[in-house]
Amino acid sequence: MSSNSSDQPKLKVGILGATGTVGQRFVVLLASHPYFVLHALCASSRSAGKSYSAATKWKLASPMPSSVADQVVDSCSVTKESRLLECDVVFSGLDASVAGSIEAACAAAGLAVFSNAKNFRMHPNVPLVVPTANAEHLAPLIAAQRAQGAQMWVQELLREAPDGHAADYIDPELFVDGGCIVTNSNCSTTGLVVVLRALQAVFGPATKVHVTTMQAVSGAGYPGLPVLDVFDNVVPLISGEEEKLETEPRKILGTVEGARVADAELLVAAACNRVPVLDGHTLAVSVSFRDSAKVEPEAAMEALRAYVPPPGEEVWARCPSFPHGVGAVRVADEADRPQPRLDRECGKGMTVSVGRVRKCNLFDLKFVALTHNTILGAAGSSILNAEIAVAQGLIKGSK
Amino acid sequence: MSSNSSDQPKLKVGILGATGTVGQRFVVLLASHPYFVLHALCASSRSAGKSYSAATKWKLASPMPSSVADQVVDSCSVTKESRLLECDVVFSGLDASVAGSIEAACAAAGLAVFSNAKNFRMHPNVPLVVPTANAEHLAPLIAAQRAQGAQMWVQELLREAPDGHAADYIDPELFVDGGCIVTNSNCSTTGLVVVLRALQAVFGPATKVHVTTMQAVSGAGYPGLPVLDVFDNVVPLISGEEEKLETEPRKILGTVEGARVADAELLVAAACNRVPVLDGHTLAVSVSFRDSAKVEPEAAMEALRAYVPPPGEEVWARCPSFPHGVGAVRVADEADRPQPRLDRECGKGMTVSVGRVRKCNLFDLKFVALTHNTILGAAGSSILNAEIAVAQGLIKGSK
Amino acid sequence: MSSNSSDQPKLKVGILGATGTVGQRFVVLLASHPYFVLHALCASSRSAGKSYSAATKWKLASPMPSSVADQVVDSCSVTKESRLLECDVVFSGLDASVAGSIEAACAAAGLAVFSNAKNFRMHPNVPLVVPTANAEHLAPLIAAQRAQGAQMWVQELLREAPDGHAADYIDPELFVDGGCIVTNSNCSTTGLVVVLRALQAVFGPATKVHVTTMQAVSGAGYPGLPVLDVFDNVVPLISGEEEKLETEPRKILGTVEGARVADAELLVAAACNRVPVLDGHTLAVSVSFRDSAKVEPEAAMEALRAYVPPPGEEVWARCPSFPHGVGAVRVADEADRPQPRLDRECGKGMTVSVGRVRKCNLFDLKFVALTHNTILGAAGSSILNAEIAVAQGLIKGSK
Amino acid sequence: MSSNSSDQPKLKVGILGATGTVGQRFVVLLASHPYFVLHALCASSRSAGKSYSAATKWKLASPMPSSVADQVVDSCSVTKESRLLECDVVFSGLDASVAGSIEAACAAAGLAVFSNAKNFRMHPNVPLVVPTANAEHLAPLIAAQRAQGAQMWVQELLREAPDGHAADYIDPELFVDGGCIVTNSNCSTTGLVVVLRALQAVFGPATKVHVTTMQAVSGAGYPGLPVLDVFDNVVPLISGEEEKLETEPRKILGTVEGARVADAELLVAAACNRVPVLDGHTLAVSVSFRDSAKVEPEAAMEALRAYVPPPGEEVWARCPSFPHGVGAVRVADEADRPQPRLDRECGKGMTVSVGRVRKCNLFDLKFVALTHNTILGAAGSSILNAEIAVAQGLIKGSK
Repeated sequence: MSSNSSDQPKLKVGILGATGTVGQRFVVLLASHPYFVLHALCASSRSAGKSYSAATKWKLASPMPSSVADQVVDSCSVTKESRLLECDVVFSGLDASVAGSIEAACAAAGLAVFSNAKNFRMHPNVPLVVPTANAEHLAPLIAAQRAQGAQMWVQELLREAPDGHAADYIDPELFVDGGCIVTNSNCSTTGLVVVLRALQAVFGPATKVHVTTMQAVSGAGYPGLPVLDVFDNVVPLISGEEEKLETEPRKILGTVEGARVADAELLVAAACNRVPVLDGHTLAVSVSFRDSAKVEPEAAMEALRAYVPPPGEEVWARCPSFPHGVGAVRVADEADRPQPRLDRECGKGMTVSVGRVRKCNLFDLKFVALTHNTILGAAGSSILNAEIAVAQGLIKGSK
Repeated sequence: MSSNSSDQPKLKVGILGATGTVGQRFVVLLASHPYFVLHALCASSRSAGKSYSAATKWKLASPMPSSVADQVVDSCSVTKESRLLECDVVFSGLDASVAGSIEAACAAAGLAVFSNAKNFRMHPNVPLVVPTANAEHLAPLIAAQRAQGAQMWVQELLREAPDGHAADYIDPELFVDGGCIVTNSNCSTTGLVVVLRALQAVFGPATKVHVTTMQAVSGAGYPGLPVLDVFDNVVPLISGEEEKLETEPRKILGTVEGARVADAELLVAAACNRVPVLDGHTLAVSVSFRDSAKVEPEAAMEALRAYVPPPGEEVWARCPSFPHGVGAVRVADEADRPQPRLDRECGKGMTVSVGRVRKCNLFDLKFVALTHNTILGAAGSSILNAEIAVAQGLIKGSK
Repeated sequence: MSSNSSDQPKLKVGILGATGTVGQRFVVLLASHPYFVLHALCASSRSAGKSYSAATKWKLASPMPSSVADQVVDSCSVTKESRLLECDVVFSGLDASVAGSIEAACAAAGLAVFSNAKNFRMHPNVPLVVPTANAEHLAPLIAAQRAQGAQMWVQELLREAPDGHAADYIDPELFVDGGCIVTNSNCSTTGLVVVLRALQAVFGPATKVHVTTMQAVSGAGYPGLPVLDVFDNVVPLISGEEEKLETEPRKILGTVEGARVADAELLVAAACNRVPVLDGHTLAVSVSFRDSAKVEPEAAMEALRAYVPPPGEEVWARCPSFPHGVGAVRVADEADRPQPRLDRECGKGMTVSVGRVRKCNLFDLKFVALTHNTILGAAGSSILNAEIAVAQGLIKGSK
Repeated sequence: MSSNSSDQPKLKVGILGATGTVGQRFVVLLASHPYFVLHALCASSRSAGKSYSAATKWKLASPMPSSVADQVVDSCSVTKESRLLECDVVFSGLDASVAGSIEAACAAAGLAVFSNAKNFRMHPNVPLVVPTANAEHLAPLIAAQRAQGAQMWVQELLREAPDGHAADYIDPELFVDGGCIVTNSNCSTTGLVVVLRALQAVFGPATKVHVTTMQAVSGAGYPGLPVLDVFDNVVPLISGEEEKLETEPRKILGTVEGARVADAELLVAAACNRVPVLDGHTLAVSVSFRDSAKVEPEAAMEALRAYVPPPGEEVWARCPSFPHGVGAVRVADEADRPQPRLDRECGKGMTVSVGRVRKCNLFDLKFVALTHNTILGAAGSSILNAEIAVAQGLIKGSK
């Protein structure tokens, strides 16, 4: 086995929704990737044909990579001519309103899609994977999808495509087996499940989690929130967010049984808030375990420090986006950390920062967790999921 | 009985710590008060002798009242000559590091002190009162203090004064019976207990409360927090705050038994955070009741809308700072409210805004509460407590 | 002469664009006005028929006045039945895209319109008045309009109405003489001209002004700017703003000659910037005068302190929105003021704050000026203009 | 000649004031430098002996480099034993209150000091160099200093050291010739002079500059500004800043004549403001030239795009901190740029972004310039100055 990624042949990748805020993050992360090569930048028909710099309202603090500025933007439709079809991996930063039909069309055309959209997260055969929490879900569920062939995704396409006009999205002649869709979780779920998985490794199953989020504005994309709504303000509602945060962890922390996931027996209560922070979701968490006996703050911090997520070092060594050196979880030494401005870049945004691990009057433990919402919480998870799949031989560069 | 405050003779009031941020709020609220007349503005010896405008770094958005700009600042010491001794009511916005000895000295000199400091909140004979939550604690505990005479406060003075140098704070010849100290709660506690009291009026005793706070920067005073600590940031630690929030509600929601309060049987778990908001503490709360049977969001909202805090309308009619018209609690109609920027001024900052009352997966209810931290959460509570005491004949203007 | 406004009979007023952000400010300022009575709240046909609270996304920190919450919103069209026609004064907070035709229709129907929109500011017979700078323009230019009768506004209506469909806005049977339009300046112009007028009173004509603005986000209305555009940011372009700021002061500081204004001989160079401030435009100004000889910072501060704008105390005494007590200009004593958070509410938002008056290496003087952009810079100016017109007998309550 | 820096032998470097905010920026920039090797981290005696991570309140968004966390902090005093003496280059991020004596002591001990402090900027023999504006000042003025030997700095030490206690800073036995001090400009000056130099290359000497700054809070260090002073606010005074901005450009744009600089004949008028931005100073500039004839916006943009600062490509090729690829100046294509959040990282913070180049009513041109205030505006300039000196053979690694 190779101990790093330098032997990995280059793979062509496409981005769906490349001009949006998640798409921009994909572009930044992939522009300097050791083996993924940006091949197709896809966006709405309004943008198609323009240069990427002309089509994009760039809103990231890090400048647009010069290598993509002049690349021509494609549409998201799957046709014989489209560069998408030449890709080995497709990343999706599409909005949920269009992601379903486009991603299904790609999968029906045999493409491996790694999606940040919510549409297929709860599909029984689709892995919902936070890479540093439950990467072991990837292989069996990708296999389960492939066992069903293109037909599975043709059916989803019919379901998702408005008025059943699936042919608007893909030419039936392009249907081919071998495609798959892998999803990652909602940005507010991401940090929570990484920490829970690390604690469960030592304490056994968590049964009750109370989480209050303080979420960054970048999570709402661009134009997103009007400044008058967040300036000097907290907005105590993020539509649909609490439902996701109360549901997704059950699947992510569940176990694969055959072709699907058996949910964890976990109750989550969530309260989601938008705060005037640019990047980085902060979570105030209380948690109880089935067996509370040995749950102590010191032991919890030790568990977090020792945590090596599955599938383990051998695979991580071949994943360039894994936060090598820092690790999947970093425990803050300072009493008033983690803080989004100071800790969100930890591990290049791929590490979950945890602090204030302490006893709780009503649960076993209280702690604070912080995740970079557009890196580990979005594009970064998709990319690391794809790297794991490559490292495990689930994706082959035949193109 | 008089139905309003217009019959009330004028009363002379003093402010301890008048130049600080809580003191500034006292000044704004009292400058236009119908019967409290600003008589003594007291601050450190560094400020004494200067004009109020020269001694004060004014940091409120509302301008300094012109009536106080030229008033001369006094020191906080209690001597035969001090204007403090001429006051009928003394408000304290002192920092805890000095509040103990100065407030005890005032009480030992027969003054009625309404304090925002934490020093005596947990003293068994001192009422800890959020005016729109537990005003019924006032009369019996003030009586309990007066029954003990000046001696009670002389003892506290000896305990609080450094090296027992009590005489540095008050001349023993000035000891006189009849003084008292009334405290109000920590700013983050305030909104919580008002809502709990309103709910308890219909649902009976609450037993478990989980609260995550998102607190405004004005709570830390001036200079308070460096901008580099709160800009684009959340600080998940406010030193000592969680302890107060887990302790104070038990006394406030307790019942007076004889000369002291029997704590409520209530467990509170708190997680306190500083967010980039100027004024207004937002609380995400989950709560369970001893008898959960009839607890439903609709019934809760009805209870909150119907809530008239003790001691009832007859007294409130004589309290100018009570939020007449709006009420002690306002239930937001909009799904994404309350929000600090839009709701903190509700009822001139004396109303608690509540919203998002909904079911919780782990408790009976979840909701969001918002309090103006320097009005109802600080100076406003002290003033309304004093107005209740006046309306109930507990304070007489003999001076 | 009456020395105050208490003798003034009530006058019915309407608001065009009542649900927008400038309209909301009109509502707050007029809800407690001593003699203007809110009669017609007009907005788009989408809002017409709804209650004001249902039609409005309220975004001001001060709560919506309870008196208007249930008032039914009217459309902006002028018909025999519309409440608009019953008004003595109409205030316009309309967007420029629709203000032209609607305001012209109102004026053609004989209404007195006080508008915050830019459409007619440069019309030779329309007064462009910042009330505390050039109120003497009001009477002669209103007279000039009235001398032309309804026909003047019918022509403007034909010009402004798309495809000349003027009849969509007003029934020709309603044309009646006596209407007029009065405009106030752009929000960034307002503070500048008040200070210049005060300085010119002592130093004579200003000839060169260099102004760099740091403007608040509320100036862009709601939804206005996406948070990602202003958070941790400065946007050095406000479309069309520099042109207004370089043009309007010439008319405002000009002199009425016959039926029109002769522009002042003044060159203005402007650089306009948006900064992360909620309310309050800050201006860094350098200015030179035709006669520089006696221009000194001390003399300038004296001139600013002594400034009583035309038409003088006798009229101001009858204008409830004039900042009595504080004055049209306040000179800050502190070296680091004015600051928007601390000074924008000065004079209830109707006073211009000035500070740092000092020598300039390239002009005669440098100083900093601050205006509340939605009060004196918008709705407040319209209202005070109308009060002056009432005090001068230019508006009569015949309805 | 070598075309890059890979041949350059490693050089040992020290940082004075390593725990402060400028010091932290030095640490980040130097931790991964190709040939400067962090050897001595020096701070106050309070920090000396602690590990760098224990001694430092880290406030940068990019994490502390792991390589320095355990390094032991030294004091700033120059003794036989101090690691400082082993350094080839010393960078100073000291506060002006202590920088004078410490830097002079280092120079008297033969060290090459590159300082961000203001103390010696105006010394006639000390180069005041913004590396991408006037690097040609370096060689002749360093030579001028060396010609005077250690004695020059011993005299400065006597002048700067309190009570003439120079021996508290350095042991006279350590005096040795060959030391020198190079300074870089105030952070608000930096961006201005780079642009002026680029324009002067085509248009000839600038004669009048009007500049209004909107400066980031990081410029004030930590703790720096209380949040209550900058939240929702502009502070129109930065003490001493306007003086620096009106003075330093004259030296920087001057010409070396013998051992000193003849100032440029340039009048600068500055108005400095603090705005709620974390990093990045935005400047609104108007400028006139001696010969205005050919000054046009298009020509100006062309000049800015074509600008290659002295001493030219051959030297820059050997300077790793020069913004290769992007260049010293970047002209924004978008009408509303540069903006600090989007453009400050341009060229890794070493490029000045310029936009809105347009005609001005009162000067020849108006434009907006943006500089990262703690990179090019502080630590980055010091480092690039040192790299130029190394590339030009002015510093030799004899240690």
